[in-house]
Amino acid sequence: MAVNIAILGFGTVGSGVADILLMNKDSIKAKTGKDIVLKHIKDIVDFPDSPFADLVTHNDDDVFGDPELDVIIETIGGSRIAYEYTKRALSQGISVVTSNKELVSTHGVELLKLAEENGCSYLYEAAVGGGIPIIQPLYRDLAANKITRIAGIVNGTTNYILTAMKEEGISYEEALKQAQENGYAEADPTADVEGIDAQRKLSILSTIAMEGNYVSPDEIHAEGISKLALDDIDFNDKVQAELKLVAYFENNGNGAIAYVAPTYISRRNLLSSVNGVFNAVMVDGNALGMSMYYGQGAGTMPTASAVFGDILQVAVTDGKPLEPRLWKESDSKITPYAEVKADILVRLDSKADELVKAFEGYSPLAIGNDAVMVNSISHADAEKICAGIDGAKWFHVLR
Amino acid sequence: MAVNIAILGFGTVGSGVADILLMNKDSIKAKTGKDIVLKHIKDIVDFPDSPFADLVTHNDDDVFGDPELDVIIETIGGSRIAYEYTKRALSQGISVVTSNKELVSTHGVELLKLAEENGCSYLYEAAVGGGIPIIQPLYRDLAANKITRIAGIVNGTTNYILTAMKEEGISYEEALKQAQENGYAEADPTADVEGIDAQRKLSILSTIAMEGNYVSPDEIHAEGISKLALDDIDFNDKVQAELKLVAYFENNGNGAIAYVAPTYISRRNLLSSVNGVFNAVMVDGNALGMSMYYGQGAGTMPTASAVFGDILQVAVTDGKPLEPRLWKESDSKITPYAEVKADILVRLDSKADELVKAFEGYSPLAIGNDAVMVNSISHADAEKICAGIDGAKWFHVLR
Repeated sequence: MAVNIAILGFGTVGSGVADILLMNKDSIKAKTGKDIVLKHIKDIVDFPDSPFADLVTHNDDDVFGDPELDVIIETIGGSRIAYEYTKRALSQGISVVTSNKELVSTHGVELLKLAEENGCSYLYEAAVGGGIPIIQPLYRDLAANKITRIAGIVNGTTNYILTAMKEEGISYEEALKQAQENGYAEADPTADVEGIDAQRKLSILSTIAMEGNYVSPDEIHAEGISKLALDDIDFNDKVQAELKLVAYFENNGNGAIAYVAPTYISRRNLLSSVNGVFNAVMVDGNALGMSMYYGQGAGTMPTASAVFGDILQVAVTDGKPLEPRLWKESDSKITPYAEVKADILVRLDSKADELVKAFEGYSPLAIGNDAVMVNSISHADAEKICAGIDGAKWFHVLR
Repeated sequence: MAVNIAILGFGTVGSGVADILLMNKDSIKAKTGKDIVLKHIKDIVDFPDSPFADLVTHNDDDVFGDPELDVIIETIGGSRIAYEYTKRALSQGISVVTSNKELVSTHGVELLKLAEENGCSYLYEAAVGGGIPIIQPLYRDLAANKITRIAGIVNGTTNYILTAMKEEGISYEEALKQAQENGYAEADPTADVEGIDAQRKLSILSTIAMEGNYVSPDEIHAEGISKLALDDIDFNDKVQAELKLVAYFENNGNGAIAYVAPTYISRRNLLSSVNGVFNAVMVDGNALGMSMYYGQGAGTMPTASAVFGDILQVAVTDGKPLEPRLWKESDSKITPYAEVKADILVRLDSKADELVKAFEGYSPLAIGNDAVMVNSISHADAEKICAGIDGAKWFHVLR
């Protein structure tokens, strides 16, 4: 049986989906019993050198007017045109598979409802962790678990930069430049380096962990890596940890926590060994315990691999969702960042004594003469006290 | 809608499945829209103190005579009674979910065919990697990929022993005793320490990677850890690697490789950081690239979590497999172990010069004065040459 697909946006990811079809068509047919047929590619430009050049159209009606279309692959990105196309497809009962974290994290509630109303699927495995299977495992393989904690390195650009700073001893600016030259960072890196991309991905992961109670990106405090200095990285060895940008979620039953921030990850924690452009998501379930999913968080083929997993899900289910995967608007259950109590590390070179004094009452623990560990202090208090000490910086820690 | 299940074998894993039902019933209902109802527990003994005591029966007919039964959980283990029960259930069109790696790796071809003929499912996520989602991701999320390589730490007992030897500097015998005292090794540890358990798991993983062409455990060379000495572990630092029991599969297109053996894993490889009873499976796909799945490889609740994932798969599909997952007998495509060419490390304390001479022609590379690296040598030649040098030992390496 044939499954007809169209790709909207023939860029990095979209073209990868077509490439996989060329590369593994027979193997996919053998495994799924389905013929995946690429019928249309909608883009604003032509691709004369592509083996799929003949499929390229600039006319929406060629796509949306095709009564035989089963799946639309939305790899346009952003939440404007992509939003309109997705609504149009789902309204017509055409399933949509996407890698668009911005759209899913912003309009997921509406789009998933629209899909359900029209008996089709809206799937977004590729929106988080690139090629790493994480959305499907959370929904299906871990369905018997309540998700109590998620700690992820979900942005390859920032992890590449931090790894380069550490291994080559170069500054943030130099590392960013290197990432841009190697195609791992965009000309305007803001969304990556300021933690906005990670914030969107954590919004998606948190919503699933909250069993569909929508956690908007706006509820997630996001701090990036652009203010990090080389000596923050050099401090890794002193605390036997690695400074990484961590997307963190925790749900202890009474109130949930979700934020993105630079975090010293203990070297005892496997997450600390995730380097370069790789991503990893650590998930704690109340039955499974700790688990981790690791792989390439970006790139043409890895991301296309995840998109294809969803295409095949649509293929084997004829687009009918196997279980309810709706998101619902809900009064935020996310504790305001300022109120969150956490264990932190405070740095002030060669002035630990000063820090010990400032944090007395929290029984701080001095680390050499350059830092103190402070347990269970609210972010607001940490901020306030550090503001009063010239040069003091505080960081999250993950054991 | 209710899904009626029965548990055969109320031991470690079976009881965990019941416990999860108590613990997360509402959450499971909310996520899947299904009521999972435990109707029968078949065991040879009673469990008067269990909250499920009333469900326990010694009579097969209470289970197989129940027309409303949807799923049987086979957590008996072994390939004798479990084999008979599984055939009986599948013949009646009752789906079977199992954690039984011995049965799946031995009779998978027949049992999967029987399930298909009777329009039901035979699922075995929990048979490999305990709670780690690996079977479903291989079949579904990675379906767009040809699997080119699998390297796994799939036996928690041996990994616990090797970790204890390294961290506490104790002998193999002491570490084994400790593992037994802590319940991580059985009184008769043979299946674990001789690599038989890992061999069965690799048989399952390899068969899936070969797209259903059955790789029998008999085709997989298995070497355990019982002959390892403390100085083999102490050597870790010299080569910046960790000695682990690795289940290895590779398929380069012309012929596949599959074996279980102690292997020095480079510290650059994330797999080297997997310690204690944890398991991890590294999977390379031709689109995805490298990925890794990590978690608890054994234990009541983690394994029960994986079993439950399969129960819910049956629940949402009414037991009808979504895609063909048959295994087929096939002339072995596994290259005989002796013929396999690999990069190896050969150790002979303070006699590297002797090794260099013995392996000349393979341009060996001396490591200090205690070992040499030899690239692309057949296992047979490695064996033959080492046999001629008193005290020389060779090991696999994984970069």
